[in-house]
Amino acid sequence: MADARLIDGTAVARDIMNRTGEKAADFEKRTGAKPCLATVLVGEDPASVTYVRMKRNRCAKFGIESRHVPLPDTITTEELVGAITELSNDPSVHGILLQHPVPAHIDERAAFDAISAEKDVDGVTSQSFAAMAFGFDGFASCTPAGIMRLLDAYDVDPRGKHAVVIGRSAILGKPMSMLLLARDATVTVCHSKTTDLPSHVRNADIVVAAVGKPEFVRGEWIKPGAVVIDAGYNEGNVGDVEFDAAATRAGLITPVPGGVGPTTIAVLLEQTVTAAFRQQQIPAEA
Amino acid sequence: MADARLIDGTAVARDIMNRTGEKAADFEKRTGAKPCLATVLVGEDPASVTYVRMKRNRCAKFGIESRHVPLPDTITTEELVGAITELSNDPSVHGILLQHPVPAHIDERAAFDAISAEKDVDGVTSQSFAAMAFGFDGFASCTPAGIMRLLDAYDVDPRGKHAVVIGRSAILGKPMSMLLLARDATVTVCHSKTTDLPSHVRNADIVVAAVGKPEFVRGEWIKPGAVVIDAGYNEGNVGDVEFDAAATRAGLITPVPGGVGPTTIAVLLEQTVTAAFRQQQIPAEA
Repeated sequence: MADARLIDGTAVARDIMNRTGEKAADFEKRTGAKPCLATVLVGEDPASVTYVRMKRNRCAKFGIESRHVPLPDTITTEELVGAITELSNDPSVHGILLQHPVPAHIDERAAFDAISAEKDVDGVTSQSFAAMAFGFDGFASCTPAGIMRLLDAYDVDPRGKHAVVIGRSAILGKPMSMLLLARDATVTVCHSKTTDLPSHVRNADIVVAAVGKPEFVRGEWIKPGAVVIDAGYNEGNVGDVEFDAAATRAGLITPVPGGVGPTTIAVLLEQTVTAAFRQQQIPAEA
Repeated sequence: MADARLIDGTAVARDIMNRTGEKAADFEKRTGAKPCLATVLVGEDPASVTYVRMKRNRCAKFGIESRHVPLPDTITTEELVGAITELSNDPSVHGILLQHPVPAHIDERAAFDAISAEKDVDGVTSQSFAAMAFGFDGFASCTPAGIMRLLDAYDVDPRGKHAVVIGRSAILGKPMSMLLLARDATVTVCHSKTTDLPSHVRNADIVVAAVGKPEFVRGEWIKPGAVVIDAGYNEGNVGDVEFDAAATRAGLITPVPGGVGPTTIAVLLEQTVTAAFRQQQIPAEA
């Protein structure tokens, strides 16, 4: 069998960001202010610092203001909820990103849910999760939403397909499952307690790996012709899928890096601009 | 193979209701008032009228007051949301049930979400759904929660088992999937767009049928020894599973009636009493 076609996440993300940049410029022309994303970072975890910097750089490049809110890792849940509530009530802020993860002593769910639904451009609140599950209006979790954009860009219609999602986190596996289900896939959610993971993956038309373990999903498990989405990013540019072996069997596969990663940020920017238009009650026809 | 063992939902429900009745009596002794469930019924659909009457009769039998709020089917979403918000703000009401379904012209999600989280004893709000999915404190959707009680009563530990949920409604299939996932099952959600449903069911250790089509799940699909939960109820006391054939293969199976049905009401009553204690800030040690 021929090698899989590569999914070019960088190109898909560039399209989203270019259109987002045009809309951001239009927003600024109409209102005199840029769309504004508040980035809340608790502590100084090096990976988190890097992610937030990347997101802020992208914002700057595409005409979105970012307001950085660094907080000490000694902050309490109550104080963090207070800081986020203040941003939720601040009309000059259109979107709020709380960088995940927060220190263990903090109630992350309470902090996420302090983000008002209309500013939840990272799609992490309970309200946004229910919106994804039930199909009402709301923002989607960025990485799963980015993955849906990749599928769309490569004409992969999930309808009637068997999708296996490996991982069940609140910001990736669970919302991913809900978005695939909303698009009529038959969805299996696997995780650390799953017995016989290979047999589940072998049945999958679409595999989404989101476990955070390098090359955890073996190439020989992949059904010939399947679509393989690797949402993992491990040290040394290694994903959660054994790429070389999987690429000999898959029909389509995301590389790491350059697959899922870029679309996550692109969706964050896009949702920030959408939020800005909605909060100003301007129809977003850029 | 011997016939399956029957799951006696009536007995499981009776245990839950007896304990709930004791707690309701304790609540009344301490506060001078019964726990109170408001039942909101829009229109006069005969099945809905019957369901609400059954629920109110059960309340009365176990020391729970029910306050019936019948509304005309000409009501608007706004008016219904207003009526429910009033109940959410009324300190003499501890739980609110909006009988499903509401007429098609009403935004059911908006109506459900007008129920305050602490009174959502039927587990239908976005907040309650997220609580089920993410494992934070909240009320569970009653039918899925009742099914979990059946599994517990028969020592079926979902951990590591493959559960196949057929149906993806907001009040049954989706919350069911989340509750099974929270208990570490590997969960597959099937629905009307699923291709090759039999092959999914054949792999299932636990099957939950929630489709509303008589005998839709064929007995020959059942893996020998599987646990079969039939949440369907169709005309003529017929479930969603082809019972006789399934019972020759399953290890455990729910009858219809007398399986899932009774536990739904039992959980509703239990959650109403729990809500009453919480709102009065009394520790519920009956």
